[in-house]
Amino acid sequence: MAKSWVNSAERIGADLHLELAGSGGRRAALIAALREAVRSGRLAPSTRLPPYRSLAADLGVARNTVADAYAELVAEGWLTARQGSGTRVAERTEPLRHAARAPRKAPPRARGPRHDLRQGTPDASAFPRAAWLASYRRAVQQAPSEVFGPGDPAGRVELREALTEYLARARGVRTEPDRIVICSGFAHALRLLFGGKDRDRVLGGTLAVEAYGLPFHRELLAAADVRTVPIPLDEDGARVDRLARERAVLLTPAHQFPTGGPLHAGRRAAVIDWARARGGVILEDDYDGEFRYDRRPVGAVQGLDPERVIHIGSVSKSLSPALRLGWMVLPERYVGDVLAAKGEREAWASVLDQLSLADFITSGSYDRHVRRMRQRYRSRRDRLVAALAEHAPHVEVTGIAAGLHAVLRLPPGTERSTVRAAAWQGIALDGLAGFRHPESPETDMPARDGIVVGYATPSEHAYGAALDALCEVLPPGPV
Amino acid sequence: MAKSWVNSAERIGADLHLELAGSGGRRAALIAALREAVRSGRLAPSTRLPPYRSLAADLGVARNTVADAYAELVAEGWLTARQGSGTRVAERTEPLRHAARAPRKAPPRARGPRHDLRQGTPDASAFPRAAWLASYRRAVQQAPSEVFGPGDPAGRVELREALTEYLARARGVRTEPDRIVICSGFAHALRLLFGGKDRDRVLGGTLAVEAYGLPFHRELLAAADVRTVPIPLDEDGARVDRLARERAVLLTPAHQFPTGGPLHAGRRAAVIDWARARGGVILEDDYDGEFRYDRRPVGAVQGLDPERVIHIGSVSKSLSPALRLGWMVLPERYVGDVLAAKGEREAWASVLDQLSLADFITSGSYDRHVRRMRQRYRSRRDRLVAALAEHAPHVEVTGIAAGLHAVLRLPPGTERSTVRAAAWQGIALDGLAGFRHPESPETDMPARDGIVVGYATPSEHAYGAALDALCEVLPPGPV
Repeated sequence: MAKSWVNSAERIGADLHLELAGSGGRRAALIAALREAVRSGRLAPSTRLPPYRSLAADLGVARNTVADAYAELVAEGWLTARQGSGTRVAERTEPLRHAARAPRKAPPRARGPRHDLRQGTPDASAFPRAAWLASYRRAVQQAPSEVFGPGDPAGRVELREALTEYLARARGVRTEPDRIVICSGFAHALRLLFGGKDRDRVLGGTLAVEAYGLPFHRELLAAADVRTVPIPLDEDGARVDRLARERAVLLTPAHQFPTGGPLHAGRRAAVIDWARARGGVILEDDYDGEFRYDRRPVGAVQGLDPERVIHIGSVSKSLSPALRLGWMVLPERYVGDVLAAKGEREAWASVLDQLSLADFITSGSYDRHVRRMRQRYRSRRDRLVAALAEHAPHVEVTGIAAGLHAVLRLPPGTERSTVRAAAWQGIALDGLAGFRHPESPETDMPARDGIVVGYATPSEHAYGAALDALCEVLPPGPV
Repeated sequence: MAKSWVNSAERIGADLHLELAGSGGRRAALIAALREAVRSGRLAPSTRLPPYRSLAADLGVARNTVADAYAELVAEGWLTARQGSGTRVAERTEPLRHAARAPRKAPPRARGPRHDLRQGTPDASAFPRAAWLASYRRAVQQAPSEVFGPGDPAGRVELREALTEYLARARGVRTEPDRIVICSGFAHALRLLFGGKDRDRVLGGTLAVEAYGLPFHRELLAAADVRTVPIPLDEDGARVDRLARERAVLLTPAHQFPTGGPLHAGRRAAVIDWARARGGVILEDDYDGEFRYDRRPVGAVQGLDPERVIHIGSVSKSLSPALRLGWMVLPERYVGDVLAAKGEREAWASVLDQLSLADFITSGSYDRHVRRMRQRYRSRRDRLVAALAEHAPHVEVTGIAAGLHAVLRLPPGTERSTVRAAAWQGIALDGLAGFRHPESPETDMPARDGIVVGYATPSEHAYGAALDALCEVLPPGPV
């Protein structure tokens, strides 16, 4: 027995040698080395450790140092000390299992496709690093101390003030800082509105949605027990005359997602009338409102009646989804409930990022960036249209007046094979089918074959090759 | 009629004069001015607008410019155009209501108390601005482009690697980057574990909790339909021998919150045994594990069995709650479910902040900051203990070996009056009563009178005055 102690101790001692020379003190080094020996399994469960004096002598440290180290590791549960049986390695320390595990879903784009034309993302290579860093530095340097304490769940007032001015100017939104609540993005806004149990919900029950929209939003709502009821789309946008008993409707008025047109003026008026007559509320998803190419942006529906519209926006398309910053512009009556849903303190959006965005907006950097990106995306759209005109003149391209994506209408029955052909060529893009609400009746809203081309996603130098590859996989026209 | 047009037009024209000279173009300026006139009510609903030619002549612009502007505003819903009745201000634009509203709950600490001794917050004035900015700058400058695109819901691998190393070294946590999921803080971790509908939940049903704990966590769990069952505390920490049918228990082993002691070694072992025998899981809330003053930190329980413990930490106490960054160290079997709960992409924690924290840790800034704060808080604790010894020797102070707060035990029946007296003197602090689980039986766990003193919260220069004020309001000792 004594032999085995000494062996263990010697082996530990050898490992400890370097550690004991470190800056953390001998006691700390000894604890770390012993812990590691147990952790790694070199000291097996139940192994008895050498008495203080032996180990102390081996290592050339004071006996008290060893006693302290043992006591510490007993307190942490690595060792056990029982009267008469000395100090032993505890039974319960198991090495970390490296089991063969179910392969984890690969993180999105960890190893991206050759050509990424998925919708929803701005050109990541165009993030304005220098301007953002300048705003961040100013924000952190100038912040009063309280910024680093618990935050107001409404978000920083500096950002809410900057947004009030910016959204009025750029989007025709009429609001004031007290009606804005900062969040982590559109999905967070949906959770704040529809989350919680029935009695705590801001909104609940049923939500009318456009027949084509983001499946992720439908899934999120379904998970919150919200029934989504599709309303059909036509060339003027959502058929808001079809709103029935629902009390809330989610719309993308500036640029229907994904099919592409703006909501017609008459429909904008009609949906406000509906909300007034029924006590309803409109959720305005203003996901890419800044990007309109052939004329000024269509103002937000919110401006028509701020008491009937929840206007939701974010920097995810205009700047980067990496920032996780969005906002809700609320009718008066919802402000208290949304804040209650958010919690007593800011638990979500980074307060330093909020201050940086406020600076980024008020310093004019945001406008400059949006202008630059608008030019870039417009030129990409033009290249897409020109490439199609040359190589696939039979393919109609729609939804091109605005946004970061276009829809290519395809002959009936060719969508799936086109998406497959694209995948085969290393092009990532989505077919229209996945965006269609599964309960949308065919009679009401005939299914359309098409693909959604996110022309903003590739970096500038990669776009040409992506376009060429895309033209290769489109179904051939009539001979 | 023509007169009133001209009047309106003249008034608008006057307002427009400056705008028309601006850089945005005459058409844009005209649209903005008209929109503003409608918005503000200067142009009332139904007002007929002047014909293109009149306004064009008044303003000295081309007729087409006016026609374009009208068309734009019709498209946006501000104006209506009907054959034969000309262009009118739409009926439905309502001015923003500034109704007398229910006063909003004041943001926490917007106008703070004179002396802030609430628990849970580090000294906001000690945020290491320069070091953090340096890490942020390096992170943003060195980031590959893909950082600014959609993020991996697990969090950036750079941060998960840095945490794996740091938590092993500082907290005795045994894990690997693939088992860490980044989140926005402890509350977010609870939501990821207990949120969603029954079938989607990672954990569910019932959770054993310590008889004293954060009411916010209990409320959050109640909102998710999770029943919390209190287990009593004694001088060795949570009575884990009282765990019954529950399959999950939430513990604060390093420093019981708020009463203050570490979980005894025997209890640490026992709760691991319980988890193994029952297939249970331990949620380890390591909220202030880095701050232990009189000996090395007690290592995490997680290190004893990584497959039985979900270890949760954040930078909210060690750095700042403004960053909204936390982490979950998971047993293998929960990784997939937690990622599924988090969503397909990073929708929460700022990716740039994640990279900055990774740099902050690997560059040694995090260690330096924690060391500096440990010294500062220890000295504050010493000042608290000394002040009590001098001015209120009858008040027992507990939970002082670690953390950012202490508990002052008070004579039975004096807690409420003490908290009230403190509030009267402008001192914000919490009584123990609010932390007690409401279902904790008195027989099991006698209620204790006490106050929780967050000695980390004030800035350095404000601490002395806060201490003096505190000593003034403590109940008098036996005469």
